[in-house]
Amino acid sequence: MPKISHKGEHMPASPIRKLTPFADAAKKQGKRVYHLNIGQPDIETPQGMLDAIHNSTFKVWAYTASEGTLSYREKLTGYYNKLRYGITPQDIIVTTGGSEAITIAMMTCLNPGDEVIIPEPFYANYNGFACQSDIVVKPILSYIDNGFALPPISEFEKLITEKTKAIIICNPNNPTGYLYSREELEALKELVIKHDLYLFSDEAYREFCYDGREFISPMHLSGIDNNVIVMDTVSKRYSACGARLGCLITKNKEVLKTALKFAQARLSPGMLEQIAGEAAVDTPDSYFEAVNKEYTQRRDILVNSLNAMDGVFCPNPGGAFYVVAQLPIDNADKFCQWMLEEFSHDNRTVMMAPATGFYSTAGSGSNEVRMAYVLNTTDLQAAMVCLEEALKVYPGRVN
Amino acid sequence: MPKISHKGEHMPASPIRKLTPFADAAKKQGKRVYHLNIGQPDIETPQGMLDAIHNSTFKVWAYTASEGTLSYREKLTGYYNKLRYGITPQDIIVTTGGSEAITIAMMTCLNPGDEVIIPEPFYANYNGFACQSDIVVKPILSYIDNGFALPPISEFEKLITEKTKAIIICNPNNPTGYLYSREELEALKELVIKHDLYLFSDEAYREFCYDGREFISPMHLSGIDNNVIVMDTVSKRYSACGARLGCLITKNKEVLKTALKFAQARLSPGMLEQIAGEAAVDTPDSYFEAVNKEYTQRRDILVNSLNAMDGVFCPNPGGAFYVVAQLPIDNADKFCQWMLEEFSHDNRTVMMAPATGFYSTAGSGSNEVRMAYVLNTTDLQAAMVCLEEALKVYPGRVN
Repeated sequence: MPKISHKGEHMPASPIRKLTPFADAAKKQGKRVYHLNIGQPDIETPQGMLDAIHNSTFKVWAYTASEGTLSYREKLTGYYNKLRYGITPQDIIVTTGGSEAITIAMMTCLNPGDEVIIPEPFYANYNGFACQSDIVVKPILSYIDNGFALPPISEFEKLITEKTKAIIICNPNNPTGYLYSREELEALKELVIKHDLYLFSDEAYREFCYDGREFISPMHLSGIDNNVIVMDTVSKRYSACGARLGCLITKNKEVLKTALKFAQARLSPGMLEQIAGEAAVDTPDSYFEAVNKEYTQRRDILVNSLNAMDGVFCPNPGGAFYVVAQLPIDNADKFCQWMLEEFSHDNRTVMMAPATGFYSTAGSGSNEVRMAYVLNTTDLQAAMVCLEEALKVYPGRVN
Repeated sequence: MPKISHKGEHMPASPIRKLTPFADAAKKQGKRVYHLNIGQPDIETPQGMLDAIHNSTFKVWAYTASEGTLSYREKLTGYYNKLRYGITPQDIIVTTGGSEAITIAMMTCLNPGDEVIIPEPFYANYNGFACQSDIVVKPILSYIDNGFALPPISEFEKLITEKTKAIIICNPNNPTGYLYSREELEALKELVIKHDLYLFSDEAYREFCYDGREFISPMHLSGIDNNVIVMDTVSKRYSACGARLGCLITKNKEVLKTALKFAQARLSPGMLEQIAGEAAVDTPDSYFEAVNKEYTQRRDILVNSLNAMDGVFCPNPGGAFYVVAQLPIDNADKFCQWMLEEFSHDNRTVMMAPATGFYSTAGSGSNEVRMAYVLNTTDLQAAMVCLEEALKVYPGRVN
């Protein structure tokens, strides 16, 4: 039997899905499982997108241009320029989800063995994408005590070698919900200029900023046009994760030209998704206002409930729809599995993602879990009751 | 300005699209351009697929399982088992187009520096996908004189080194239209067993076999379950190229487990496409009969017209919807560009793909072009008139 590749051996399995068999077993036992483990919102997709699908009139489901249709890129340009990104349709390559924007950016900019610095905890699939291209992830710890703020620039400097080619930020952050300030981004700007690095900006959660906070993108900063690559997706913005529609944006012409070659190899992004994507840009502000209000309520329930529990600490995040909370437990992986296998309250339990999956540094996050607030407020409250009861009886409780 | 990667520098641009600027310029001049350069069929997508889209009732456009929905994989299993593949839904990973099936298969099975043998001329994007994973393509020439039959196994043996991990066949072949015989596949089977190689079988054109010829897959051969990986797509079968829906099939459990990790990193294939894909499996036989009849007519027009031209030779292919023809010309790249820039007959011209883009061996294919018969018979006939007139006056004509 032929061997699989080393890359295949080292490729990490998804930390968000590894407890799925235990969740399935719990459901078979008749337990209700509240899913806070995965960022699949329950929010409805805007009606305009669904109408665009239902009313589509094409007869041949054809390839589009590899960089995406001009009409979708024009529409997207309008969306981004409302946010003052100052781009043209030629600065956009439409991708199959944000995932493909990340893989194309990595392949375009980094050689095998090159290093990318990422504040951790970070979106776990960056590890997988880096593994695919033999890129080395250099994590830099951020801490729950200050809500996972950007680590000091001096800590970045310590990690920079001649192999360092890029920094990835996810803003607002998955998994921490942290929203970077203008000052933090300005500091990163000086750093990438000084060391001639790419700054990859994963902005999947741009629309989800709370308490009147302002979203700042590296696209808003002057003097780093050739350094910045935005990796975006419609997945969270319009609750359309299954559309697999994203884009890569940069003003760096050489990156665009090269990224297009990778895009050409896979021929085209989805045609129907781009039709729906055009309609999505016209989603009324009222949709986002309602969604924002809903998520703010959910965040407040989650954060307040968690901090009211004995021995639990949860920072109040400024964006996205995740929190990372510190629990009085010995081991997050064991605890999350125990919740599914052993525990139930009122025949209910909660599925969470152990934060260990979001750290590269061994041993980090072992008493932290990530929760996505993608359930309605009633279910969220019930989930918090479960968690509180569970912590009271968990055999591995510490303190 | 940060540098792009070496991979980015070496990544080949699409040979099918590189003449597009000249075609656009020709159209601006008011010329009608017959597009025979790209495999985008004009055939309508089955109504059942379009109905499935129009009638979809979901409210949240959500991720599916990374390996694809169980209901789609069950449906696909029915389709493949009608073809006697003997598979289960667990042997399938649904992918974003055939492209992703190829990239995942390569990443799963080959290390950087490993070699894959591919009979040439071959589908040009194999080069791009290999480049992405730092895999070395070892081409093995097939010849127009015998219709691009499989080269003798002794020629494969000469290329096999300790770095050789896989052979790719595309059957029926793009770009040549050649349909491999059972004897040829049996010979490949012995070879992959002897050298413990993977056999990647790209079957995008499985439905397009003419003159009553039978399609044989490596899945039909016994004793190589752990060697064979099928890379498939709905793009051509249902004229749904823009759906970006494909799959990877293998009975090798270790490959499946590893491929799933790559699939998990990118989260999910398209949700709506899988709904349409389920409906596609119920496409009535009459659809394929009509399509097959249409393509047979087109092929006959193309092959007969070409062979009637002075100095032209075109084998009669058994499948797919491409031909590679030998023309009395000095240089196919120059000729195809000249057709767009300089030539017109009755204010019309033809866009073809120079066959050089489908060869890895330098200098090969320089008097060959690939034509896709994706236009109706009237347009095809008109295109052939254009080509005949062009060859009479082309300044680089030889003999």
